[in-house]
Amino acid sequence: MKLTVYLAGEIHTNWREELSKKAGEKGLPLTFVSPQTNHDRSDDIGEDILGKQPGNLYKDAAASDINNFRTQVFMQKADIVVALFGEQYRQWNTAMDVSAAITLNKPTIIIRPKSLIHPLKELSNKANVTVETIDQALDVLSYIYE
Amino acid sequence: MKLTVYLAGEIHTNWREELSKKAGEKGLPLTFVSPQTNHDRSDDIGEDILGKQPGNLYKDAAASDINNFRTQVFMQKADIVVALFGEQYRQWNTAMDVSAAITLNKPTIIIRPKSLIHPLKELSNKANVTVETIDQALDVLSYIYE
Amino acid sequence: MKLTVYLAGEIHTNWREELSKKAGEKGLPLTFVSPQTNHDRSDDIGEDILGKQPGNLYKDAAASDINNFRTQVFMQKADIVVALFGEQYRQWNTAMDVSAAITLNKPTIIIRPKSLIHPLKELSNKANVTVETIDQALDVLSYIYE
Amino acid sequence: MKLTVYLAGEIHTNWREELSKKAGEKGLPLTFVSPQTNHDRSDDIGEDILGKQPGNLYKDAAASDINNFRTQVFMQKADIVVALFGEQYRQWNTAMDVSAAITLNKPTIIIRPKSLIHPLKELSNKANVTVETIDQALDVLSYIYE
Amino acid sequence: MKLTVYLAGEIHTNWREELSKKAGEKGLPLTFVSPQTNHDRSDDIGEDILGKQPGNLYKDAAASDINNFRTQVFMQKADIVVALFGEQYRQWNTAMDVSAAITLNKPTIIIRPKSLIHPLKELSNKANVTVETIDQALDVLSYIYE
Amino acid sequence: MKLTVYLAGEIHTNWREELSKKAGEKGLPLTFVSPQTNHDRSDDIGEDILGKQPGNLYKDAAASDINNFRTQVFMQKADIVVALFGEQYRQWNTAMDVSAAITLNKPTIIIRPKSLIHPLKELSNKANVTVETIDQALDVLSYIYE
Amino acid sequence: MKLTVYLAGEIHTNWREELSKKAGEKGLPLTFVSPQTNHDRSDDIGEDILGKQPGNLYKDAAASDINNFRTQVFMQKADIVVALFGEQYRQWNTAMDVSAAITLNKPTIIIRPKSLIHPLKELSNKANVTVETIDQALDVLSYIYE
Amino acid sequence: MKLTVYLAGEIHTNWREELSKKAGEKGLPLTFVSPQTNHDRSDDIGEDILGKQPGNLYKDAAASDINNFRTQVFMQKADIVVALFGEQYRQWNTAMDVSAAITLNKPTIIIRPKSLIHPLKELSNKANVTVETIDQALDVLSYIYE
Repeated sequence: MKLTVYLAGEIHTNWREELSKKAGEKGLPLTFVSPQTNHDRSDDIGEDILGKQPGNLYKDAAASDINNFRTQVFMQKADIVVALFGEQYRQWNTAMDVSAAITLNKPTIIIRPKSLIHPLKELSNKANVTVETIDQALDVLSYIYE
Repeated sequence: MKLTVYLAGEIHTNWREELSKKAGEKGLPLTFVSPQTNHDRSDDIGEDILGKQPGNLYKDAAASDINNFRTQVFMQKADIVVALFGEQYRQWNTAMDVSAAITLNKPTIIIRPKSLIHPLKELSNKANVTVETIDQALDVLSYIYE
Repeated sequence: MKLTVYLAGEIHTNWREELSKKAGEKGLPLTFVSPQTNHDRSDDIGEDILGKQPGNLYKDAAASDINNFRTQVFMQKADIVVALFGEQYRQWNTAMDVSAAITLNKPTIIIRPKSLIHPLKELSNKANVTVETIDQALDVLSYIYE
Repeated sequence: MKLTVYLAGEIHTNWREELSKKAGEKGLPLTFVSPQTNHDRSDDIGEDILGKQPGNLYKDAAASDINNFRTQVFMQKADIVVALFGEQYRQWNTAMDVSAAITLNKPTIIIRPKSLIHPLKELSNKANVTVETIDQALDVLSYIYE
Repeated sequence: MKLTVYLAGEIHTNWREELSKKAGEKGLPLTFVSPQTNHDRSDDIGEDILGKQPGNLYKDAAASDINNFRTQVFMQKADIVVALFGEQYRQWNTAMDVSAAITLNKPTIIIRPKSLIHPLKELSNKANVTVETIDQALDVLSYIYE
Repeated sequence: MKLTVYLAGEIHTNWREELSKKAGEKGLPLTFVSPQTNHDRSDDIGEDILGKQPGNLYKDAAASDINNFRTQVFMQKADIVVALFGEQYRQWNTAMDVSAAITLNKPTIIIRPKSLIHPLKELSNKANVTVETIDQALDVLSYIYE
Repeated sequence: MKLTVYLAGEIHTNWREELSKKAGEKGLPLTFVSPQTNHDRSDDIGEDILGKQPGNLYKDAAASDINNFRTQVFMQKADIVVALFGEQYRQWNTAMDVSAAITLNKPTIIIRPKSLIHPLKELSNKANVTVETIDQALDVLSYIYE
Repeated sequence: MKLTVYLAGEIHTNWREELSKKAGEKGLPLTFVSPQTNHDRSDDIGEDILGKQPGNLYKDAAASDINNFRTQVFMQKADIVVALFGEQYRQWNTAMDVSAAITLNKPTIIIRPKSLIHPLKELSNKANVTVETIDQALDVLSYIYE
């Protein structure tokens, strides 16, 4: 059974490549999709397409229009959502994606370091599974195919 | 038309009391509900009811069971969600509540300082209205009754 | 059985007052709600609350945030939607409200002059009933209570 | 990831062909579907299939039955809706399609000239993205595949 | 707990009055609503409101617009649907109401004579309960309050 | 675009074969599914699988369990429902299927002779299109692919 | 805020009375509803209303028609579900009620003795909160009103 | 028409292999998926992935996180659910799966021995079909393709 997995969260490390590569090595029939992981492109996409905006608020509004469009397309096609929270940044759009996924009844895995147990406790509680490492997330995904 | 408003977010200032008091002064027929705003009680509620847990992870899991239960009860009864993001804390449960509300098609207002424009841009984009002050949020609520 | 009726559409005539008054005279237990009918206030509400915006596009975006918030609150509470299309203006937000109502499975009545039969044909086809006068709409509403 | 895009709106220019051709040149795996773009056929389809009707109201009702059937089939299969508003005509069925799409949670792009900013403001506000040109819409669609 | 019951079906006998009277005598806090039970008014309502139509097909279309509007209003407010099938007529709108109610997850009771067991078997199978008499239907309704 | 069409209704004529054959000749990419069209098998399927039941009521209940199971499987996979009402029989399960399809937002075509205009008026009113012949239904299906 | 609580599960002890009495003493504005708690009446209700059935399978089918009708009425009105699993009986209808409640997004509390931790683990995992005593369940309900 | 069937229930016999083998021999285009059928692996999966937990309650919680994740993935992809109840164990997760499937409107077959008629009566009543043997379940599945 082929499944599509949306990889939400942290965009400054290569965790998506690692997860995808290891899933491929195990022969799991998973297709991975993700948000724009080029931070500058993600911030600039509104002005890149619609032209210069009159200030940062408007630049951000234009960019988020298009980033949310992309996410909504993928979220609807996703069978599973995996989200990685890192220790930096506020990552509210990651929390937004996870909460939307759960509310839409998508099976969801959160990856987060021990240091984030407390601030993520309500979100972890609503997700199906919370793990600490990419390998553990992969174990959960592999378990589907046992 | 009586409406129920869930006040998500920041629990270390008295913004809920201020909003509620001002709404009362304007005679708006709004009922306000909110998460547990006593931080210690919110953190301890799992152990308060279920007894000592074997470590912080389990204490947090037990607390979030009950906090999420409370939120889910109120969210389902809410006609409107207003969420205030402050400058401190990661506030992922606030982002979680707002995203769940939007996914459930609840009309939603975000209050946040200018400093949070950028990290909240995707969430603001999905909410109906984003404002900077409690008075502006009240103006939006009052507009329903004009 | 008390019912709430959202009155979408045309804001430059007093059709809402007429419908509401006649419904009252017939003793129908209907509560009517409506969009902001003061055209200037509706156009300016974004700047009235959020302050001066950097151009008309942004002024309109800010106003529509708040107008859509108001409409969404009322639409969710409405048992019935009645929409009047006049001969002037493009009235795309009226079409938007009617289509949203129908998609949400709200019973819907359209009032429109004969001259608009052709351009409104697909929307009329999806609404429950299309009539030409306020009195006819009132007859349909009265029929609920026969 | 293959996606189906419903192209609502304006039927008197060749914008669909242009968008489709350019998407093909970029190698985007998009399938485009659309309403009947032959205006006469669209107006006559009711009588073409069901025979002569007793007047324009009934001719229009019969045609819209079948046009709405076609749109409903495509809308349910569509992953994305792109709608172009031109400067002519009232285009209420375009507004109807966009509002239905949004209410059904379909990611939606509106293309409209600057002259229509004001009358389309509430609808633009609910759509994910509003652009002014076909190339910009294509840029948004391409962004999914970056 | 007050409940609203929609009484679908047969309009040529006084079963609704009988059920309502007996429920009242038992003190059950039920509110009953129903379709138009005046057969002529139901058939003529389209022309009564919209004026003479060009033939029976169009007269029937106009009437069913308004009858379906009324039913949709009540169906949405109903907590329970009770439908009585008599031995005469084709009663397809009764079957339509029952099937819509079941699809909308409304608890449903069918009353039908033994002679209709076979033709109603699939519909009875989907309804919660099928009985033969008004008193049995009342017993089922009373059981809620035991 | 491949589409699946559920053919509800009348099982004593070969209208399904005719529709399917003509659709094939036109090259329409439609897959047709249908209820059990062998009347005896449909009536006996409960006892065929579960064994002799203690009377007709129970035989019918057992059969309808399995017939409804089959219909539910196909209904969920169907993109379109076409239902033919003939002049014989009460055909309440046809009305049930059409009403369920409409409530589930499936695009629906009814085929019925002129003699059934009046008793089917409410159901026709809720379906997308009502026609009188198989060829007309085919024309509507073909129109999707123009 | 008044809330309705459906009390599923165990019918051979007086836990419902205890919970209801203690909630009243605390002044909680809760209305409690429950399944038929008279075991014999629950088993016999089918035959009590519909008459003698031809064997236990049919007697049970008739009873469960009416018990499920009652439960569906209450489940739809319930804001919260509390379910108590005792040590006796298989209690599959309790598990059925809890799972239906969770799937319908109702906030849910399970009460079960320590001895049932293992067999109930998947169901506890999906419920919001699992406790061991009636007093703990009451504490969770009280927490809503803090 | 290819269909996916989720096989819930009993994991200590080889009924899934038998059903799957016989379906293959009949050439039915069915894909079968199922929960983890290795009992020890199912119980240990939480600790296998997340490491040693501080007691049985926590071990079970961790395991059920991951088992429910797997079930939710398959349940969403399943067109049909078949559940076998055996005579041993409490099997509450089987009841949970069946009730979730029914609430999600999945066509459902229960297989159970005669001895379980009474305790399963409410669940059987909500499922589409209840049979006693694997061959009977296969007959029901085959009936789809007649």
